[in-house]
Amino acid sequence: MSKTRIRVGMVGGGGTAFMGTVHRIALRFDDRYELVAGALGSNPDKSRADAATLGIAPDRAYGSWQEMMEKEAARADRMDAVIVVTPNFLHFPVAEAALKAGFHVICEKPMTTTLDEARALAALVEMSGKGFFLTHTYTGYPMIRQAREMVAAGEIGTLRRVEAEYLQDWLAEPVEKTGAEGAVWRTDPAKAGAGAIGDIGTHAYNLAAFITGEEPTHLLAELSSFVSGRKVDDDAMILLRYGSGAKGAILASQVLTGNGNNLSLRVYGDKGGLEWWQERPEELWFTRLGAPRQLLRRNGAGSTAAAIDGSRVPAAHPEGYLEAFANIYRDAADAMDNPALTVPVPSVVDGVRGLAFISACLASSGQGASWVPIEN
Amino acid sequence: MSKTRIRVGMVGGGGTAFMGTVHRIALRFDDRYELVAGALGSNPDKSRADAATLGIAPDRAYGSWQEMMEKEAARADRMDAVIVVTPNFLHFPVAEAALKAGFHVICEKPMTTTLDEARALAALVEMSGKGFFLTHTYTGYPMIRQAREMVAAGEIGTLRRVEAEYLQDWLAEPVEKTGAEGAVWRTDPAKAGAGAIGDIGTHAYNLAAFITGEEPTHLLAELSSFVSGRKVDDDAMILLRYGSGAKGAILASQVLTGNGNNLSLRVYGDKGGLEWWQERPEELWFTRLGAPRQLLRRNGAGSTAAAIDGSRVPAAHPEGYLEAFANIYRDAADAMDNPALTVPVPSVVDGVRGLAFISACLASSGQGASWVPIEN
Amino acid sequence: MSKTRIRVGMVGGGGTAFMGTVHRIALRFDDRYELVAGALGSNPDKSRADAATLGIAPDRAYGSWQEMMEKEAARADRMDAVIVVTPNFLHFPVAEAALKAGFHVICEKPMTTTLDEARALAALVEMSGKGFFLTHTYTGYPMIRQAREMVAAGEIGTLRRVEAEYLQDWLAEPVEKTGAEGAVWRTDPAKAGAGAIGDIGTHAYNLAAFITGEEPTHLLAELSSFVSGRKVDDDAMILLRYGSGAKGAILASQVLTGNGNNLSLRVYGDKGGLEWWQERPEELWFTRLGAPRQLLRRNGAGSTAAAIDGSRVPAAHPEGYLEAFANIYRDAADAMDNPALTVPVPSVVDGVRGLAFISACLASSGQGASWVPIEN
Amino acid sequence: MSKTRIRVGMVGGGGTAFMGTVHRIALRFDDRYELVAGALGSNPDKSRADAATLGIAPDRAYGSWQEMMEKEAARADRMDAVIVVTPNFLHFPVAEAALKAGFHVICEKPMTTTLDEARALAALVEMSGKGFFLTHTYTGYPMIRQAREMVAAGEIGTLRRVEAEYLQDWLAEPVEKTGAEGAVWRTDPAKAGAGAIGDIGTHAYNLAAFITGEEPTHLLAELSSFVSGRKVDDDAMILLRYGSGAKGAILASQVLTGNGNNLSLRVYGDKGGLEWWQERPEELWFTRLGAPRQLLRRNGAGSTAAAIDGSRVPAAHPEGYLEAFANIYRDAADAMDNPALTVPVPSVVDGVRGLAFISACLASSGQGASWVPIEN
Repeated sequence: MSKTRIRVGMVGGGGTAFMGTVHRIALRFDDRYELVAGALGSNPDKSRADAATLGIAPDRAYGSWQEMMEKEAARADRMDAVIVVTPNFLHFPVAEAALKAGFHVICEKPMTTTLDEARALAALVEMSGKGFFLTHTYTGYPMIRQAREMVAAGEIGTLRRVEAEYLQDWLAEPVEKTGAEGAVWRTDPAKAGAGAIGDIGTHAYNLAAFITGEEPTHLLAELSSFVSGRKVDDDAMILLRYGSGAKGAILASQVLTGNGNNLSLRVYGDKGGLEWWQERPEELWFTRLGAPRQLLRRNGAGSTAAAIDGSRVPAAHPEGYLEAFANIYRDAADAMDNPALTVPVPSVVDGVRGLAFISACLASSGQGASWVPIEN
Repeated sequence: MSKTRIRVGMVGGGGTAFMGTVHRIALRFDDRYELVAGALGSNPDKSRADAATLGIAPDRAYGSWQEMMEKEAARADRMDAVIVVTPNFLHFPVAEAALKAGFHVICEKPMTTTLDEARALAALVEMSGKGFFLTHTYTGYPMIRQAREMVAAGEIGTLRRVEAEYLQDWLAEPVEKTGAEGAVWRTDPAKAGAGAIGDIGTHAYNLAAFITGEEPTHLLAELSSFVSGRKVDDDAMILLRYGSGAKGAILASQVLTGNGNNLSLRVYGDKGGLEWWQERPEELWFTRLGAPRQLLRRNGAGSTAAAIDGSRVPAAHPEGYLEAFANIYRDAADAMDNPALTVPVPSVVDGVRGLAFISACLASSGQGASWVPIEN
Repeated sequence: MSKTRIRVGMVGGGGTAFMGTVHRIALRFDDRYELVAGALGSNPDKSRADAATLGIAPDRAYGSWQEMMEKEAARADRMDAVIVVTPNFLHFPVAEAALKAGFHVICEKPMTTTLDEARALAALVEMSGKGFFLTHTYTGYPMIRQAREMVAAGEIGTLRRVEAEYLQDWLAEPVEKTGAEGAVWRTDPAKAGAGAIGDIGTHAYNLAAFITGEEPTHLLAELSSFVSGRKVDDDAMILLRYGSGAKGAILASQVLTGNGNNLSLRVYGDKGGLEWWQERPEELWFTRLGAPRQLLRRNGAGSTAAAIDGSRVPAAHPEGYLEAFANIYRDAADAMDNPALTVPVPSVVDGVRGLAFISACLASSGQGASWVPIEN
Repeated sequence: MSKTRIRVGMVGGGGTAFMGTVHRIALRFDDRYELVAGALGSNPDKSRADAATLGIAPDRAYGSWQEMMEKEAARADRMDAVIVVTPNFLHFPVAEAALKAGFHVICEKPMTTTLDEARALAALVEMSGKGFFLTHTYTGYPMIRQAREMVAAGEIGTLRRVEAEYLQDWLAEPVEKTGAEGAVWRTDPAKAGAGAIGDIGTHAYNLAAFITGEEPTHLLAELSSFVSGRKVDDDAMILLRYGSGAKGAILASQVLTGNGNNLSLRVYGDKGGLEWWQERPEELWFTRLGAPRQLLRRNGAGSTAAAIDGSRVPAAHPEGYLEAFANIYRDAADAMDNPALTVPVPSVVDGVRGLAFISACLASSGQGASWVPIEN
């Protein structure tokens, strides 16, 4: 075969876990990867069985991620990269081991459960020279990338305000008590690190920076746990101050009935505004001061280079979440193939920023919701 | 004629001022009022000329509101009520004089420019026994009244979160410097009392209370003036705490390009959620926990009594802003005709609450955006 | 009073009939009319009682429209115009009598129940020199008038296709059997002349011509009566051919569940397209070939003169059905005051075209849905 | 490897052709297929080069589809199925050869260019016992499959009306003259067979049958070629009659500016209505007679088995066109693995119906747009 694909091993993502399936579809999307190894869960036997159903060879279906790191490192046809789709508290040790063994890392967010771990990982990445890719899915949407290019090109002028919302309702009831998939570890402070701010707030925070190119310096966070007995925050109202004088608000909640995965970003400058809703990801609203609102569509009239590059099908043939994910995988592959390349994929630096955000939210909330600096 | 109409005199609203026209259409809407007197502006000659074009008899076209109060009080066919549509700083003296002369008052919001004035007016209304109606327009929308009834009926359960936005863009540039109508006095602290928080923030604040039936006890306000040289706030991010444990956010801005009059209210409880956007006022989204989203339409399937009562045309024949305004006028007429009646029109008590909100916003902002109590 | 208002008498529209209320609100809207006389129903006593509740003087509350014509004609302060809001079959005799007595006429659509009557009325209007105004409500919407101006200005180029839909669901069941208001006479061939094609199809047909400035020459109509026992069509699929080579489709139905008053017009030329939905009347979508879609808003950026002239409140303060109706009344008043003026209100000529449309639909349907000429 | 994948060879789809890429992403999506052979274009050298870039082994990168059929048939590890993504006129000979050589066929629509070919192919499939899958993409959308299940379950009652639209604008200008990709052969009668009716009309026609479970018996078609010099229809207005008494309209056009890929299906019965728009494929509107409109979301509350089965990610994480395509591939794989299984993928029978539709459209149009029977 004249074509070389990147060999990857996956940690976590066994069984019917949502994110494991998503990562696997994304890696097959553009045929740039080959899934050759796996340590798919905490139960060794189940891990190996799950690997078999995915077509992983028996000798590379591992019982633990430690075993995978050790044995793969010793193979001539060793894997090139590790995909980390475990609960949050394992991100750090797995990524650390992978980097130390000389593998690239593709890692779910939030990058770690503490800011210290995040900083340690950043140092390790720097030393290792390997690629580190943080799957902030939503940065893979073509219209998000277009928004970023339009802001950079001055289309909205000087930034004034950011409004970011990430609203869900799947935790409106204490579903963790009935063992709902994904809810148990996400509401366990030891395994998740934080609640809504970590699970979805970091996405909104990351996206705001991705689009505007600006990082806030201070924040104030009013965190709540509306569901009785819940041990982590399930609702957050966060205000942001930027060094430039811009301001922002992030509203993140997992208990607002009627919201599925209602992530939205609206950014306004002194010359125009851009608005995007994740549930209709093909559409980007753009308004120039004094002009009619324009509805920009992926790959349609008015597309920027990034939106065209990120599109696989013509305008109005809807793409979605998996395509966004696949863009991140595709770009990560480009960067692994050519380390000199700059790709629009969140890095370990963004991972540190995410933890600094979570850390500042907790600090602010602990002080009765007062202003605190964000210490990246 | 077998029909008796309420005789009204208007203060302010001459020339092409937007709000004067709106009040006059609203009072004619249901044929419950007769405009018999006017002191329509600060220039006596122009006031009288404007009155003539509105069909007001020459002897009741007054040069000043003081003159109107005095002469009308002396007539056998004296007016019954005074409509106050002046810039904010005149609301108090005009309303005070009207109540003292024994006239009902229909008054624009914010009710006064200071909390002290507001409290004084409340005391005066109490003593006078006359009706006082505050034209928080948006409470007149049938779907807002339906939302209020649905919340009261327990449809969303115990309140958790309020999200209120009121976003505009007409002050995105320093239009007050070019004398744009309505912008000059609205950005003059002496005449307006406050900026966005008073002009639009009070609407959002009032509406949140109108729908939920709960008043917050504390707030935190981050106010900004994004336009260089502007003397009042043009952007506000406000967080709310309720005694019940509920939380809320109000985002009010007049500088976010692409937003016309983008007022929205979303309220969520432990059993469901309700969402409404002013620019599509005929639609109310309702989601019960675990059920599909429903689109409720004015006067359509699922309508409550208030929505039907507030409708003049069948479902899907759009009603709008003027119909909402007319509902307030119609209900005020009912209440003037029958003082024992309770009508869903904001009162002097709501006016005090509005000023307490503005006052608390300024206090919080003055302390670097920290939490302060709201002192009604 | 320095102001003169047009004196009107109303025929039909008593009790709680929807359209009577609509006409009365519209005539009060801009204070250009005074309702001085009425023959509001077929029952003389009830007609007089209804008139009293509307504030009409006892001596001008008539028991029949014949009586009204006769007595008003003899008064010194006689009415200036007659408003016809009866069931369809009375439009002709009432309008005829009014014109012969020298009154202007404001008439509901469809203008008559037969094409012969329509032509006779047109001849009479011509002879009489009086104004005749057909209340095709939807032509009063500012964005419809803007669409018309944009087409005339060449914004969409040479017309290719018209898509007009008018879909409702209120007749999805045989509600006429239970005496539902408005349904009984509308489904009686003798009183209505036709079903959906007359009640709503004519609106769509009129609007297509209003916007495009072109009249089709031939049509083909597939008419159905889906509800068992219904005596008129309740669903129509109509194809149009224009002399210019343009084509069109009109889909009109009163039995499609989920549609409230879903009237839409989409017109496409070789340079662009315009799209409008009545249930969101403030929005007009405009796309130039090769450019992003633009959302034009009433009185907002990109407004034409007609849209601004037809607006009473700023952009994004929704106007609706009643404001559209009021625009027709306001413009009719202008035309009555100044007969030399051209106003964008449908005339007796449009009324004839409407009946020619209905007549052609019935002819085509009678021939198994084949192409027939439209004979205006 | 414990997993067996279906081996496929592709005919057509080389270079940057849109549909080839789509088919390849779809076949990788669920890892059920392996692309082992290809004859990707009409130029042998380019075909082989394109195959190499896709990772096809040199000895299976063929210069022509005839060569592929011959050599693959002789291999021990021969391919299992052929994917046909050529221009329309080659569908028949390629599919015929594949079936005769004992391969399953996955074929683009329209199935052939003439009804005779379609019938011949149907006979051949019957004889061969091999699977034949027609990629009517839109049937793969979960909400379309849910609509089908809801209609079958009686949710809308007895069918009354179908409204299907498929509107595009990419052929609004004579782009075939400038050699625009895909436009040249699609507007060549010899290669495409028909214009808009074949390219997009068949999708709408197929989808209507897929959802309703009813086939119309007669149609009437008004076809136009609005672009000067165009040799095929670029606009079609089609009326349908069903044996049951139901009626339908299909509007298909490729010249209506502002429409990207605006396919919609609305079906109404005597108990309810269902409405779906392809550009927002995650949403299905459902209205029961007399009840509020409900917005059903893929994999959300109210989902049917088919919608859940067709979903890969949770509700509100948008899926789109490629996921719909992948569903067809996944289900075809199920059927190839287990021929006894019934899967909701269009078959050769649907292919014949599509050609009968095209044939009837041309016949009706040739007779001045009169009613003709549809002869499957």
